[in-house]
Amino acid sequence: MESTFLAACRRESVDHVPVWFMRQAGRSLPEYRAIREQHEILEICRTPDLAVEVTLQPVRRLGVDAAILFSDIVVPVAAMGVDLEIRPGIGPVIDSPIRAIGDVERLNPLDPEADVPFVLESTRILRRELGSTPLIGFGGAPFTLASYLIEGGPSRNHVRTKALMHGEPATWHKLMDRLSEAVLAYLQAQIAAGASAIQLFDSWVGHLSADDYRAFVLPSVERILTGLEGAGVPRIHFGVGTAHLLEHMAGAGVDVMGIDWRVGIDEARRRLGSEIALQGNLDPALCLAPWDAIEDRVTEILRRGGGIGHIFNLGHGVLPETNPDTLERIVDHVHAWQPGG
Amino acid sequence: MESTFLAACRRESVDHVPVWFMRQAGRSLPEYRAIREQHEILEICRTPDLAVEVTLQPVRRLGVDAAILFSDIVVPVAAMGVDLEIRPGIGPVIDSPIRAIGDVERLNPLDPEADVPFVLESTRILRRELGSTPLIGFGGAPFTLASYLIEGGPSRNHVRTKALMHGEPATWHKLMDRLSEAVLAYLQAQIAAGASAIQLFDSWVGHLSADDYRAFVLPSVERILTGLEGAGVPRIHFGVGTAHLLEHMAGAGVDVMGIDWRVGIDEARRRLGSEIALQGNLDPALCLAPWDAIEDRVTEILRRGGGIGHIFNLGHGVLPETNPDTLERIVDHVHAWQPGG
Repeated sequence: MESTFLAACRRESVDHVPVWFMRQAGRSLPEYRAIREQHEILEICRTPDLAVEVTLQPVRRLGVDAAILFSDIVVPVAAMGVDLEIRPGIGPVIDSPIRAIGDVERLNPLDPEADVPFVLESTRILRRELGSTPLIGFGGAPFTLASYLIEGGPSRNHVRTKALMHGEPATWHKLMDRLSEAVLAYLQAQIAAGASAIQLFDSWVGHLSADDYRAFVLPSVERILTGLEGAGVPRIHFGVGTAHLLEHMAGAGVDVMGIDWRVGIDEARRRLGSEIALQGNLDPALCLAPWDAIEDRVTEILRRGGGIGHIFNLGHGVLPETNPDTLERIVDHVHAWQPGG
Repeated sequence: MESTFLAACRRESVDHVPVWFMRQAGRSLPEYRAIREQHEILEICRTPDLAVEVTLQPVRRLGVDAAILFSDIVVPVAAMGVDLEIRPGIGPVIDSPIRAIGDVERLNPLDPEADVPFVLESTRILRRELGSTPLIGFGGAPFTLASYLIEGGPSRNHVRTKALMHGEPATWHKLMDRLSEAVLAYLQAQIAAGASAIQLFDSWVGHLSADDYRAFVLPSVERILTGLEGAGVPRIHFGVGTAHLLEHMAGAGVDVMGIDWRVGIDEARRRLGSEIALQGNLDPALCLAPWDAIEDRVTEILRRGGGIGHIFNLGHGVLPETNPDTLERIVDHVHAWQPGG
């Protein structure tokens, strides 16, 4: 039986609206925190037994309609020869950031079977373990990866990234080429290993103007998404604070557009048309409000989604302080809802 | 002679496009840093001689078309009885955040002449010192102030603020009432003391969904802006990451809508119509790119603005690491530009 999640991605009619949560495998779950006490994040990503366990935890506890591979967006760039670590409370930190054409040329091409065998092994195990539950593979998009590589870590203003983009466009485009080639290979390999869908995360792209997005980023996203066109799995694309970019992002070759909580699902539908599915979009901060308020918003989002071509999700990742019981109640509420309800 | 800045706010024809910079009086200027070595921020705000000097510094150095009163958005809330300090590298920190109706009721109404006499004294001195250069008064908008008060400081996700908004709407609306009343009185007093225009900053409102903005924030902004309607000075309104809110914000009673760098000025004009002026919108991060790249973007923004009803500015505040020489070159370039150029 085809999964409800995949049917909704294809805008087919479904018994219930499917739901999963970005960052559902993470700090909000005590069973995840127990594993994190013993293991670093990159160690979990690189150890199939651990990555599989952490990926399965939210499926078991929450009853979501899809699993998402536990990994970190910097895993493929680390495999391309970038020396980095993930520091608690900070995020990825890179010792020798990319600042010039020579740095770009030192990035190795990514051969997924050789360079990230653990990701593919985890995917293959999960494919078996999950039975009929779909597995979403994922990768970071070139702009977000580039910002980490250029800034040397998480950045508030992306100053060096934008300076390189505008000041040395040839270097910038070369970097985008390398990254999009690697991300495409990475996602293709996950699909070959059993991923039933993929999500391309461009977490930080909302910091760009619409002009900069079109000129400096969109071609690399198109290259990845159109490169996956023949793979036969839904392509989900998502960024935060992208109200000014939605049409461009959705036009890059997506099957499902992830909408953060700022723009209503009905408004997104008006802007993007009915040829793609939409995913979202409860404000993650609202998971810490009283249940009645949450329930009202969830119902309203479902009503606006209309029950077809809608995958319920948060508008960004689960916040660490979220009570997992709240997520479970949201899943039950979404599953019980019917159009007209 | 009427100033170019005020004429542009009223969409009258001008000899050149006027320009000023948000946070133009600040850490990018060595003469400001020299004063900061001796004095805390709140001390500068509360000492007219210092506030006047810091306000005048960018006018002298950069040749901008307007001054903006040096102050901090928490100055009026401190004067309402909130115990706070501004901590270096963090921002305003509040010891006893607002969490319940009793906390809201303890906020004193603001009587500007009695509670913030130093702001009005600075304004009066500046009015004399500035000659024909306009002085922009300013205040923080209720949502942004409320977030500081509820979270106890700067916040990434505004979790407690949103929980209060949705979980205790009566408390929330009471807080919005108190704050909008105070901000209105604060801006009226600045105008009476000589401010030639005002800017209402809602720095963080872009974190709200369009629905939450309409239901929980817009009425308080309307109350302030329409309350200033008869004062005869241009009302500028600005927030960051507000591509999804522009129509609502602009409809609240503004003369000039500040646009961050994400949305093109021409696109903003299409969405908002020609009845209001627009202010913006160079990405502040681009001030650290090579000059040729900056010049191209500035020209493009001017071209899109069309030379009428456009005040050039950055799309957010000047970054501390910006070279003041770059700002000076931008001013010269803006002043030299002519429509068709």
